[in-house]
Amino acid sequence: MFIAKVIGNVVSTQKNAKFLGMKLLLVQPYISRDSKLEISGSSVVAVDSVGAGIGECVLFTQGSSARLTPATKDAPVDAVIVGIVDTIEVGGNILEKP
Amino acid sequence: MFIAKVIGNVVSTQKNAKFLGMKLLLVQPYISRDSKLEISGSSVVAVDSVGAGIGECVLFTQGSSARLTPATKDAPVDAVIVGIVDTIEVGGNILEKP
Amino acid sequence: MFIAKVIGNVVSTQKNAKFLGMKLLLVQPYISRDSKLEISGSSVVAVDSVGAGIGECVLFTQGSSARLTPATKDAPVDAVIVGIVDTIEVGGNILEKP
Amino acid sequence: MFIAKVIGNVVSTQKNAKFLGMKLLLVQPYISRDSKLEISGSSVVAVDSVGAGIGECVLFTQGSSARLTPATKDAPVDAVIVGIVDTIEVGGNILEKP
Amino acid sequence: MFIAKVIGNVVSTQKNAKFLGMKLLLVQPYISRDSKLEISGSSVVAVDSVGAGIGECVLFTQGSSARLTPATKDAPVDAVIVGIVDTIEVGGNILEKP
Repeated sequence: MFIAKVIGNVVSTQKNAKFLGMKLLLVQPYISRDSKLEISGSSVVAVDSVGAGIGECVLFTQGSSARLTPATKDAPVDAVIVGIVDTIEVGGNILEKP
Repeated sequence: MFIAKVIGNVVSTQKNAKFLGMKLLLVQPYISRDSKLEISGSSVVAVDSVGAGIGECVLFTQGSSARLTPATKDAPVDAVIVGIVDTIEVGGNILEKP
Repeated sequence: MFIAKVIGNVVSTQKNAKFLGMKLLLVQPYISRDSKLEISGSSVVAVDSVGAGIGECVLFTQGSSARLTPATKDAPVDAVIVGIVDTIEVGGNILEKP
Repeated sequence: MFIAKVIGNVVSTQKNAKFLGMKLLLVQPYISRDSKLEISGSSVVAVDSVGAGIGECVLFTQGSSARLTPATKDAPVDAVIVGIVDTIEVGGNILEKP
Repeated sequence: MFIAKVIGNVVSTQKNAKFLGMKLLLVQPYISRDSKLEISGSSVVAVDSVGAGIGECVLFTQGSSARLTPATKDAPVDAVIVGIVDTIEVGGNILEKP
């Protein structure tokens, strides 16, 4: 899984029927450098399965496992938010989430 | 999933039988930088399952989940367009799609 | 899927039994930049399932879907050529295949 | 699989039910350059299935195979630690793990 | 699949039970540039299923297909060596394997 920041949302009307009612969020993965978190360049669209909101730090899963939540069962999705991150601890310090 | 722009189409005559009748589109993923969308360098060939056209901004799914649309069932495909994107909102603004 | 050029072939004698009789081709993916195709640096070994030859432009599938052709059923392969590309059209122009 | 160093842990309260009781570790993959190991920039969150601790060098598996441990069965996870690495030998030398 | 050079081996005692008896090799993928093979920076740990040895040039498979050899059936592995490469021919020449 990767840690990411929820930065926006995506609206689609003409779409696969399984996407009806799904909340699509734009997330931007963090990378860690010198025990700090930085936002990376590439963004991913992930289905929300845990009630995540804009600005929150989340954990998301990719690939076939993305279909294993109640919100995404049997749907053609490859990324899903599976948790809201409270803290990330590295070297005894709680990392700041930029 | 990733957001991409449909930039072209691909024609193949000699192909796997499951590809008969499939519309193959060339899509170019967007990356987001400083709350703007930019076109990235790598392009992907995705099966259209929602009636997408050239120039449109779409959502596409990769991996085994790409087989979970009516258009791609049991076919040897690894990328499918699952929605046409109306809007992408970041920080209260609707992003322009270059 | 990705578009690639077939640049060579790979011979292996000591191999998994499912590879017996498989044609293994070395393919080099194209990337598109400024509406042109360029050869990228990384090459992939893909099983041929459509009768592709050296120098041809092909479409290949990766991941679990690579097992869904008659040539690759249940085999431990992760890349298969599924079509020979006739034309790629971008912006009304047929792209040259370098 | 990739070799990585366990550098931290991740706490999430609001999460998918299958994550209850899972230990989520932040791991940073090694790359090898000139027969030396170096820490790469991108970090991954992996479920621990073998009792790994901070600072240890581990082996982790990604993708659908990440669901094939007792700790991760049927869960929406895409990365799991499957072993603690004792030694890595290259060219007759045991590599140091930075 | 990718072509790689076997550069070392990995020993792990505390590990998932399915890894008992598996030979874990460190392989370094080749990339091709100007019809030559070069060693890339990132290394992968792959299970040996064909009797490969240090210094040999091998073919390895990633993802769910890595579980489809007798040596890796149902195990949480994502990379397996499926063949020892005899020759790679590009442009009528047999490439040297550095």
